[in-house]
Amino acid sequence: MKTIGYFNGEIGELSEMKIPLCDRSVFYGDAIYDAILVLRGKPFALELHLDRLYNSCKLAEIAFNTEREELKKEIDKLLSYCDSDASMLYMQVTRGAAPRKHEYPENATPNLIMYVSPLKLAPKDKKASLMSIDDLRFQYCNIKTVNLMPNVFAAQKATANGYTEALLHRNGRVTEAAHSSILMLKNGALVVPPLDNLILPSITRAVIIKICEENSIPVIAREFSTDELKSADEIILCSTTKNILYVYNIDGIDVGGKDRALAEKLQNLLLDEVARQTGVRL
Amino acid sequence: MKTIGYFNGEIGELSEMKIPLCDRSVFYGDAIYDAILVLRGKPFALELHLDRLYNSCKLAEIAFNTEREELKKEIDKLLSYCDSDASMLYMQVTRGAAPRKHEYPENATPNLIMYVSPLKLAPKDKKASLMSIDDLRFQYCNIKTVNLMPNVFAAQKATANGYTEALLHRNGRVTEAAHSSILMLKNGALVVPPLDNLILPSITRAVIIKICEENSIPVIAREFSTDELKSADEIILCSTTKNILYVYNIDGIDVGGKDRALAEKLQNLLLDEVARQTGVRL
Repeated sequence: MKTIGYFNGEIGELSEMKIPLCDRSVFYGDAIYDAILVLRGKPFALELHLDRLYNSCKLAEIAFNTEREELKKEIDKLLSYCDSDASMLYMQVTRGAAPRKHEYPENATPNLIMYVSPLKLAPKDKKASLMSIDDLRFQYCNIKTVNLMPNVFAAQKATANGYTEALLHRNGRVTEAAHSSILMLKNGALVVPPLDNLILPSITRAVIIKICEENSIPVIAREFSTDELKSADEIILCSTTKNILYVYNIDGIDVGGKDRALAEKLQNLLLDEVARQTGVRL
Repeated sequence: MKTIGYFNGEIGELSEMKIPLCDRSVFYGDAIYDAILVLRGKPFALELHLDRLYNSCKLAEIAFNTEREELKKEIDKLLSYCDSDASMLYMQVTRGAAPRKHEYPENATPNLIMYVSPLKLAPKDKKASLMSIDDLRFQYCNIKTVNLMPNVFAAQKATANGYTEALLHRNGRVTEAAHSSILMLKNGALVVPPLDNLILPSITRAVIIKICEENSIPVIAREFSTDELKSADEIILCSTTKNILYVYNIDGIDVGGKDRALAEKLQNLLLDEVARQTGVRL
């Protein structure tokens, strides 16, 4: 399957599609986005992703007026082109096209960009390694914007050094990864960094927390350092396209692997939830 | 005159031009830019701007291979469409178009976007007001990237509240404005914030420093607070399109205006330099 793109209702092969040069994505990265796992045409956690998409618009003051039901119809239209077992649905709302000026344009209409691309899921037992890198991002990380150069730099550095992902920290305090979230298991509990303006409210994280609560696994939200993370029982790298990967190595040092029973239980519970919503057992 | 755009050699009316949807500007704001004052077709401080453009590419690891002389020929081609007395030349180099993935694409070629638009210069005696706003930007401010959402938010907030520009500060330390630089005159000297990763190396600032050095006006590079700025003799807001504007008000409080002689001398010296390079006395 090719990657099928969408721009304001127009559908085509993504690599051949174009957008106005004056779209504010181009001049300011002035846009928000979201990404959703799709299994055999069925999106996982769609409502939570749409909640976040609309909330990002609100926080960024992007006047996106497409109603949720109308948006879902457009998503369905795009997903009808989807013939892969697993895909990623990408959605981006820009502030619109206008002559370049920092202030919000008065007469611009938000543009909606989407695409659906085939996704190669990592094997369930794949393990991840992390390279710790200073988190030099802006302090609007709770808004899912395309101002992603620091994430690009961090991901590039980690990958070039042979790691799966970057472990971002602010003066030692763990925030997240370049395009994933970081959680840990410690003494039988799930420990998550508290949500604030330095962390993206990850949907996979939210689903994992819900699953823990439903299965009497304690959840603790508190700050933790890279040192504490290294000594955790299990370290979770999670995202929409990865689900859960367990981390075996940080900065070349072996970590985790001390609570395989809970690690496997949690992963199975997440895959159960994915199966429940999409009908596909990964 | 209309705004004339340029994309990899193609020239047209900017508002009608398009770029590939998969350009990394769109998905990541993964691009650097520069902006140059043009008077009757002649760019001011062109070499300094090109130095900064190439340096931004280097810092962002964008493999822009267009040689400087070739780039100047493309600029000349675009400027041949320019029939305004004053214009702004905008230039943007993107990492190229590629399927979306954080890491640098292996086979993408940087795209060059430019445009030249008519510019209405502010009257020489226009004064500016500032609204102080927390500087929540990333810590790569020395690279002139299009990751500009925090600048957009700050400019919007300042303008919506009736101010000319935002005065950005990190915990009270003055960095710059949303799309300008901040300098001050104090006891007969020019005081400038030291350049580091929190401040863009402004070309207008560099020209003003050079002019001071040539005219025995002492230049001091050191950090200063918003409080100290408010008590300065004169406060300078400068940028490529503004040259020098003096600030008369910060957060509703009258400021500056205590060394009009030096203020006027400096402004005239800058306009002399503009006239020397472009032949146009503003």
